[in-house]
Amino acid sequence: MSEAAPVLVVGSVALDTLETPFGRRDDVLGGSASHFALSARHFAKVRMVAVVGRDFPAKHVDMFERAGVDLTGLERSDGLTFRWHGKYEGTMSSAQTLETQLNVLGHFEPKIPPAYRDSRFVLLGKAGADTQRAVLEQLQAPEFVIMDTMDLWINTQRREVWALLPRVHMLCVNYEEALSLAEEPNVVRASRKLLDAGVPFVVVKRAEHGSTLFTRKFMFSIPAYPTDRVVDPTGAGDAFAGGMLGSLAKSGLGDGAMKRALVYGSVMGSLAVESFGTERLEQATAEDVERRFRALIDMISV
Amino acid sequence: MSEAAPVLVVGSVALDTLETPFGRRDDVLGGSASHFALSARHFAKVRMVAVVGRDFPAKHVDMFERAGVDLTGLERSDGLTFRWHGKYEGTMSSAQTLETQLNVLGHFEPKIPPAYRDSRFVLLGKAGADTQRAVLEQLQAPEFVIMDTMDLWINTQRREVWALLPRVHMLCVNYEEALSLAEEPNVVRASRKLLDAGVPFVVVKRAEHGSTLFTRKFMFSIPAYPTDRVVDPTGAGDAFAGGMLGSLAKSGLGDGAMKRALVYGSVMGSLAVESFGTERLEQATAEDVERRFRALIDMISV
Repeated sequence: MSEAAPVLVVGSVALDTLETPFGRRDDVLGGSASHFALSARHFAKVRMVAVVGRDFPAKHVDMFERAGVDLTGLERSDGLTFRWHGKYEGTMSSAQTLETQLNVLGHFEPKIPPAYRDSRFVLLGKAGADTQRAVLEQLQAPEFVIMDTMDLWINTQRREVWALLPRVHMLCVNYEEALSLAEEPNVVRASRKLLDAGVPFVVVKRAEHGSTLFTRKFMFSIPAYPTDRVVDPTGAGDAFAGGMLGSLAKSGLGDGAMKRALVYGSVMGSLAVESFGTERLEQATAEDVERRFRALIDMISV
Repeated sequence: MSEAAPVLVVGSVALDTLETPFGRRDDVLGGSASHFALSARHFAKVRMVAVVGRDFPAKHVDMFERAGVDLTGLERSDGLTFRWHGKYEGTMSSAQTLETQLNVLGHFEPKIPPAYRDSRFVLLGKAGADTQRAVLEQLQAPEFVIMDTMDLWINTQRREVWALLPRVHMLCVNYEEALSLAEEPNVVRASRKLLDAGVPFVVVKRAEHGSTLFTRKFMFSIPAYPTDRVVDPTGAGDAFAGGMLGSLAKSGLGDGAMKRALVYGSVMGSLAVESFGTERLEQATAEDVERRFRALIDMISV
């Protein structure tokens, strides 16, 4: 582990209230940066830039620190922590938002601490394109930046989102977001259009149906790790991105490493969904991760 | 090709009216048996049992015969051919049925001609479970039977559909059908339940997201062949099943052959969607099929 470059995540930390067919949990640790960090830390040191309020429980801070997550960039603001209340039903393929309280996240302008500015591996969690650009401008020489986005920003800042594509290295979005951003109903044409905009790697997440890596040279597709215990899908995509970026920080950027990174992403996503909040990501062992990695490779071996 | 065992398909022949973002076509050749036969004939001789009416165009009969499809089992009934009118929009992930005229299909009771009764490789196209059972009872010693079904029969003849599972070798259904038949919102648990009912192979089709083969010993997952020309998705699932069964009839029933059969299924499904009706399946060459097979294998090679 010690040889992996540190990864930087800029995203949200939340207190989530979650309702799924498996029950309800109030105020569990959530947010893109939390899921990302607790996934990526299985592969690399993690630097986190996010904001919490004065109500943020000390136990979560302790847990992050025990997990080796560097919190120099965690801003404590005088207000309440971002809160999200969501509900999943049936196959849990989509969340119904019952309430969002942006709180301190509403006016958050991420400041990258001096000690983080040399970060080479970076995740830009879902945020406005202006916020994501402002982060990029504070970095010295990022080598591999993964960018996420979502329908809100695709619909309200489409041009700004597109303008970021040539400045990052991988766009990592779900199927619907890829089609919507490219304004194409076919995923092959959509990804081609996104690659043509100047981003070298496009990852399309298909939830329980797997994911595909599109590049100008090749495509690579894998299934989701076949877990039979989907308790709460929140954060799966962030854990996926965390597994990918952590694995790349550890193994480098060749084609083979890129394919294996997708597999590690799928592994970490499958762990994330097996508990409410971040519990399963906290508890997973290196052996859990490697066993699932090998099982996924077996599932695509002819 | 000559060494492959013949495959038998029992299904429908239709005249379809299709509306997609690519236009409208009236009275094109459709039906599960048509798509299946024109796919499977790339691998094996095909025997077809179906019914058409007095309005069925001679040009389709000629085309089937030129394609090497044995029509001994094609019943000509004194009525009109089954007609379906469907419409697809957006990503074309589901069809809206505008009109169904069962016509001669309404009272069809498939009779297997004596010369077909020794068929070892069989596809039971979507039909009532009673009809599918009656077909099985006319066969001497089928070695590999693929069974399809659909929401109508799952909802109205659930018990009868389940009773067929131990009598066939593979259930080949789409994701929603697998969940619905098993009454499980998780596909891993759903497929386990179906395997436990006594069918050795379960194939779950995930449309543009790929497909998964579940067995008691292993799972195998592949992406959809990434075509950027989805003109009309009608019949893709039947072409998929045709590619699988044809390939098995040619190559045998080992684990490796089973995995390759899934890939050939995906290849044939991707060809089917690139034209209205069966045109692309009619015109595809052995080289088209092999090139896509290799491309799909590349897409899952680490």
